[in-house]
Amino acid sequence: MVKVGIIGSTGYAGQELVRILLAHKDAEIVWYGSRSYIDKKYSDVYGNMFEIVDAKCLDDNMDELASKADVIFTATPQGLCASLVNEDILSKTKIVDLSADFRIKDVATYEKWYGIEHKSPEFIEEAVYGLCEINRDKIKSARLIANPGCYTTCSILSLYPLVKERLIDVNSIIVDAKSGTSGAGRGAKVANLYCEVNESIKAYGVTTHRHTPEIEEQLGYAYDGTPLTLNFTPHLVPMNRGILVTAYANLINDLSYEDVKAVYDKYYKSETFVRVLDKGVCPETRWVEGSNYVDVNFVIDPRTNRIVVMGAMDNLVKGAAGQAVQNMNLIMGLPETEGLMMPPLFP
Amino acid sequence: MVKVGIIGSTGYAGQELVRILLAHKDAEIVWYGSRSYIDKKYSDVYGNMFEIVDAKCLDDNMDELASKADVIFTATPQGLCASLVNEDILSKTKIVDLSADFRIKDVATYEKWYGIEHKSPEFIEEAVYGLCEINRDKIKSARLIANPGCYTTCSILSLYPLVKERLIDVNSIIVDAKSGTSGAGRGAKVANLYCEVNESIKAYGVTTHRHTPEIEEQLGYAYDGTPLTLNFTPHLVPMNRGILVTAYANLINDLSYEDVKAVYDKYYKSETFVRVLDKGVCPETRWVEGSNYVDVNFVIDPRTNRIVVMGAMDNLVKGAAGQAVQNMNLIMGLPETEGLMMPPLFP
Amino acid sequence: MVKVGIIGSTGYAGQELVRILLAHKDAEIVWYGSRSYIDKKYSDVYGNMFEIVDAKCLDDNMDELASKADVIFTATPQGLCASLVNEDILSKTKIVDLSADFRIKDVATYEKWYGIEHKSPEFIEEAVYGLCEINRDKIKSARLIANPGCYTTCSILSLYPLVKERLIDVNSIIVDAKSGTSGAGRGAKVANLYCEVNESIKAYGVTTHRHTPEIEEQLGYAYDGTPLTLNFTPHLVPMNRGILVTAYANLINDLSYEDVKAVYDKYYKSETFVRVLDKGVCPETRWVEGSNYVDVNFVIDPRTNRIVVMGAMDNLVKGAAGQAVQNMNLIMGLPETEGLMMPPLFP
Amino acid sequence: MVKVGIIGSTGYAGQELVRILLAHKDAEIVWYGSRSYIDKKYSDVYGNMFEIVDAKCLDDNMDELASKADVIFTATPQGLCASLVNEDILSKTKIVDLSADFRIKDVATYEKWYGIEHKSPEFIEEAVYGLCEINRDKIKSARLIANPGCYTTCSILSLYPLVKERLIDVNSIIVDAKSGTSGAGRGAKVANLYCEVNESIKAYGVTTHRHTPEIEEQLGYAYDGTPLTLNFTPHLVPMNRGILVTAYANLINDLSYEDVKAVYDKYYKSETFVRVLDKGVCPETRWVEGSNYVDVNFVIDPRTNRIVVMGAMDNLVKGAAGQAVQNMNLIMGLPETEGLMMPPLFP
Repeated sequence: MVKVGIIGSTGYAGQELVRILLAHKDAEIVWYGSRSYIDKKYSDVYGNMFEIVDAKCLDDNMDELASKADVIFTATPQGLCASLVNEDILSKTKIVDLSADFRIKDVATYEKWYGIEHKSPEFIEEAVYGLCEINRDKIKSARLIANPGCYTTCSILSLYPLVKERLIDVNSIIVDAKSGTSGAGRGAKVANLYCEVNESIKAYGVTTHRHTPEIEEQLGYAYDGTPLTLNFTPHLVPMNRGILVTAYANLINDLSYEDVKAVYDKYYKSETFVRVLDKGVCPETRWVEGSNYVDVNFVIDPRTNRIVVMGAMDNLVKGAAGQAVQNMNLIMGLPETEGLMMPPLFP
Repeated sequence: MVKVGIIGSTGYAGQELVRILLAHKDAEIVWYGSRSYIDKKYSDVYGNMFEIVDAKCLDDNMDELASKADVIFTATPQGLCASLVNEDILSKTKIVDLSADFRIKDVATYEKWYGIEHKSPEFIEEAVYGLCEINRDKIKSARLIANPGCYTTCSILSLYPLVKERLIDVNSIIVDAKSGTSGAGRGAKVANLYCEVNESIKAYGVTTHRHTPEIEEQLGYAYDGTPLTLNFTPHLVPMNRGILVTAYANLINDLSYEDVKAVYDKYYKSETFVRVLDKGVCPETRWVEGSNYVDVNFVIDPRTNRIVVMGAMDNLVKGAAGQAVQNMNLIMGLPETEGLMMPPLFP
Repeated sequence: MVKVGIIGSTGYAGQELVRILLAHKDAEIVWYGSRSYIDKKYSDVYGNMFEIVDAKCLDDNMDELASKADVIFTATPQGLCASLVNEDILSKTKIVDLSADFRIKDVATYEKWYGIEHKSPEFIEEAVYGLCEINRDKIKSARLIANPGCYTTCSILSLYPLVKERLIDVNSIIVDAKSGTSGAGRGAKVANLYCEVNESIKAYGVTTHRHTPEIEEQLGYAYDGTPLTLNFTPHLVPMNRGILVTAYANLINDLSYEDVKAVYDKYYKSETFVRVLDKGVCPETRWVEGSNYVDVNFVIDPRTNRIVVMGAMDNLVKGAAGQAVQNMNLIMGLPETEGLMMPPLFP
Repeated sequence: MVKVGIIGSTGYAGQELVRILLAHKDAEIVWYGSRSYIDKKYSDVYGNMFEIVDAKCLDDNMDELASKADVIFTATPQGLCASLVNEDILSKTKIVDLSADFRIKDVATYEKWYGIEHKSPEFIEEAVYGLCEINRDKIKSARLIANPGCYTTCSILSLYPLVKERLIDVNSIIVDAKSGTSGAGRGAKVANLYCEVNESIKAYGVTTHRHTPEIEEQLGYAYDGTPLTLNFTPHLVPMNRGILVTAYANLINDLSYEDVKAVYDKYYKSETFVRVLDKGVCPETRWVEGSNYVDVNFVIDPRTNRIVVMGAMDNLVKGAAGQAVQNMNLIMGLPETEGLMMPPLFP
C-alpha cells in the first residue's frame, strides 16, 4: 500500500486527488494538508466526503510528511513546492508537483511568465515532465515529477503527433482553449461568483497566459528540441469541469484524412487514456467528465490547407489529479491505469 | 460473475446502470437493450463509452434475455415490464424493474394515477418494493423487484424514522421536492431544451404527480399499514442531477433536536448509504452527485412546532441505477455495497 | 425630471436600479454611490454600462445627496439606512430603502431577527411598507418607503387574497421558496462561487430566515392585524435571477377552482404587474425574467383539502429595483408603470 | 406607426423581434405568423407574453401580409423567404429576411453550402446585406434586406477595420467562435436537451459551417471585392444567449496598440452599437446580454506578430432581431437606434 500525502488537499485539484485515491486499491492517504483549514475536519470543507474521510486538515510539514509518505502531491500555488523541496526530502520520498514550479526547464522563462523567483532551480533539471503518454519511461525512475498544466496536457496531446511527424508548419500553430470554472480554483473572487460566470464566456490572459511557454517547450521537444512559438488563448466557460482545445495549423503537404489518422493511431492506438474519435466526431467535454480520458480528433480543411485539431478532457482529472495519480502509478511500479478506469459520468 | 441484461439501456437511467456496472467487479453486462437504437453501437449513442463499451444495441427479447442473464434491469417506460414478465421468465432470471409497474400494490391506484391498464397484475403481490434500507430481507429472496422512484426514495428515506416512530401528525405531511433535469428523461421535447430549462424553476404535476401514491403507500406501511394522504410537489431545477426534498410536518409532542437525532440514528447509523448530517448542516445535492448516498437532516421549528426534514440524493444513482444495483447485490448474494462506493464527484 | 441618488449602486440591486432608471423617461441618476468603489468609473465595475454611464462612484454623503436628489434609493446592507436617516434629510428628499431597516414595525422583532440595534426607531412608524399593490395610497404620500424583501414580495402577493378573504387556515401556511443566486449579493464568498452553486440546490436559513417575520407581519395585517406564524424555507437555485414561491395551506371550506379564481381576480385583475395565470398553468421564473411581473396561480387538492399557491418573479426587479422604481413613481406622482413595462426577456 | 408582420414569430429570433418591437414606439405588430402554432394564442407559446400579447398565431399568407404590413420580417428556415418573395410583394412592402436566402450574392455558393436550390435568384442582386454599420446608406433605400447571420455579424464587425485598412494578411485569418444555445433554435432535438448541452462545450460544423462563405464574402468586399478564404469554427456553449468571436491574423507590419486603436476608432467611434473597449479589457458576453451592442477589442502579440481580435454580442439581438429592427428603422426613415437602446441585462 502506497502511503500518500497531499499538500493543498482543499483546493479543487487536491479534493479530486482525494476522490480518486479513495478508490485506488493500492494507495492510502495519510496526510490531508491544508494551510487554510488546519484542524478542521476535511469533510466540513468538502461535504461530499462526510462519513468517507474522517481526517482533519494538517499544516504543511514537509519533513514529517517525507518520513510518513511514499509519495507527496503538492497541489499548491506556484512557488510553494520549489520553496519546500530539498535533497533530504527527495531522498526519502517522491514528489508529484501539480504546480508549475518544475515544468519549465529554463529558469528565466519561468520567472518571466510567473513573475516570481524560483527557490530551488537546482532541481529543475532532475524533474521529469509528467506527461505520461510521452515521457513514460523517464517518469518511472523519477523522484520529482512536474505534473503538467491542464491546458497544456490537452493542447500537447492534441497536437503532438502532427508536430512529431512534422506534418504542420510549427510557426502557424494557434491554440484556442476553453475551460470550465473549476480551473480558476476555489478562491473567493468576485470574478468567479456564480452570477459573474454563468451565462457568459470570455477570453482572458490573451497572449500572456502562463501555460503558453509550457506548451511551446514541450512541443518543441517533439520537433527539434527548442521551444516553438505559438498563440494560446484560454476562455472561461460556464461549466464546472472540462477543457476543450481547438487548434489550428497549416499543413505542409496535401494530406488525406487517412494519412493523418494513421499518424494519430501510431501514437495513441495503444494509449488507454487517449481516445482518437471516429471520423467526423468532434470531442465534447461531456463525454470525458470525471474520467482520465482525453478525446482527440481533427478535420482537414482543403480550402485553406489547414488542419483543425480538437481535444477534450476533464481539467481536474487528466488535467490535474488523474494525471498525478497516473504519474504516481508509474513511479511506484503500479499498473499505470490503477484507480483511473472510472468511466466518464454523464449527464 | 453475474450476467446482466439491460432493457432500455439508452435512457439516462439505463446509461447510468452501464456506468455503474462497468465498475462492478462481480457483474458483466451481456445485453444492451434499446428499441430506439437497434444495431447502433452503444458508444455512438453515449460518447462517454467510446472504447469502453464495444457492444451494439439489441432489440427487446425477453425470452432470449432470460436465458442469458441472471438479472434483467428494465429501465423502460411504464407498462413495458408488466407486459413482458411471466412465470417462465421469472423462473429463469431475476428482474429489477426501474419503472413503476410493480411499485403499487393496489392495481386500481396504479391504473388511476398512471392512466394505463396493468398487464400482469398477478405478479404485483410477489414483487418486492426495493427500498433496500427498509425491505432488505424481503429483497434477498425476491424474483421481481420494484425499484423505487427517484422522488419516492428521497422522500421516504427522509421521513421514514419520523413516521415509523409516530413523532409527527401523518395528516400534516407536505413534501416539496426539486429535481435536476435528467429526471425528465432523454426524449426530445421542447420543454426540456437547454434554453427552456436553463435560468428557470417551476413546479409541475402539482397535486397529480405519480410518485404521490407511492410515497403514501410506503410511508403508510411504516405507520399503520394503510396509505397516508399527503401533498407532494415536484419542481424542475436547472441542473443535470440531484433531488432535494424539503418536507414539513407537525410534531406531535415537544421534541428536542437530540430526541429526533436519536431516532434518525436508530434507523440509519448502520446504513452505509444514508448519511444523517451534523446538526445545522443542510443537505445539498452537490455533495452526493454521482454517488449512492442520501444525505438527510432536519430542523425543528419551536415557533410552529413543525419539523422541516431535508434529503439530498443523486436521482440517477440512489434514485434509479444505484439502487437497482444495490437490489441486484442483495438478490444475488453479493456484498450490498459492491460497485457503489464511489465517492461523490465534486465540483 | 426626477433627480435620483443611489447609495449602494454597485450591488446587484443597485445596478438593476441603474438599468431600469436609464430607460425611465422621467428620471435622471445624479449620484452613483458606492463605498467599495469610490472614484472608480461605474462602467469599470459593471461593463454592461460601458459608454452608457460615464459617472464615477461616489462615497456616501447623505446631506449632499439630500440636497441634490428628489429621491434616494438605499440599496445597502441592513442598518445603514437607519443610521443615515434623520428629520432634516426627510424634509428635503424622499427615501426608498431597499434594506430591511424600516420593514418591520416592532423594533424588538427587527433586532432579534437581524441581530443588530436599530439606529433610528423613531422613523419606523412613519415608514410605509412599499408593497405597491397593497399599500398604494399610503405610499403616495410617504417620505420614507420600506421597499419589501424579494422573498416577501413574492410570498405575500401569492397568498394575500387567500388570507384577506379568510379562505385558509392561517396557522397552516408553509412557504417553500426558491431563489436565483443574485439574491445572495455580489460579495466574494466561497459559497457563492460558480462551482459551488452550479449543479446543486440546497435549503438555507431553515426556520431562521429574516424574511419570515416580514411575511408574517404583512399577511397579519391582511388578516386580523397581528402577525401570523408560518414556516418559510428559502432555497438556492443555480440560476442568476428569479424567485419561485410554492406555498401550502389548508382550505377552511370546500372551494372550487372558480371560487378561488374569483378571489384572485378581485384583487389582481386590474393590477398591471400581477398576472394570474390560466387554469393549470404553473408560474415559471423564465417567463418573468427582467420584468416587473409577478405570475401567480394555485391548485386545489381535493384529496387533502389544501391549496397549493405558486408565485414567480424576478428577484432583482419586482423583488428589489423594479418595485423601488414603482414606489418612486407613486411618491413622485408619476404613472405607476413608467419605466417598468419592459417585457420579460426570454430565453 | 409602422405596421409590422412577422413570419416565424415563434422561433427564438421571432420572439425576440416581438420583445423588441413591443417596446418600439413607432412600430406595431399586426401579424404573428407561425406555421407550427396556427390559431394558438401567442402567449401560450411564450408565457412571458401573457397579458402583453393578445394575438393568435397566423398561417403564412404573404399576399395578405404584404397588404397589411409596411415591413415583413421573415424569421424562418432557409429557403422559405426565397420561395415567397416576388415583385408584387416587394412593390407593396419591405422585407427584412433573417434567413440566409439573400445574404450570398453567388447563387452557386449559396446552393453548395446550404444544399438547397434558390427559388428566386432574380432578387439576390437587389437585396442589400443589412450590416447597418457598413451598408447604412444602401439599406435606407432597399426593399429587401438580407439580415446578417449571428456569427457573421460578430465576426465581420470584429475584423472589418483590420481588413479594410489592410493591416493583416487576409490569408491568415482564423475565426474561433462560441455561441449560446439559443442559436440552435427551438426545435426538439436530443442534442439540444438541457442535459446534453449543460456542462459541456464542443465544436461543430468544423470547416463546413454555413456562415463561413458569408464572412468571406463580406470581408472580401472590404478588401478587394472578392471573397477571402478563412477558417471559421463555431462552438456550442452552455448558456442561453451570447456569441464570442476570437479571431487571429498575422499583422503585415509592426503596429502599436495605438496604431490599431486609431483604426478601430476611425470606423466605430461614432457607431452607437459598436463599443471598442478600453485597452486590456476583453469582451464578455455577459456585458451585452439583451442589448444591441457589439463589444470589440484586440491584443497584439509581439512574439508571433499576430493580432487577436475579440467580439461579444447577443446573438438574438444584434445577431438577429435587434439588427433586423435596426434595418427596419433605416428603411422606414426612423431614428436608427429607436427601440434598441435598452441597456444590457446583468446578471
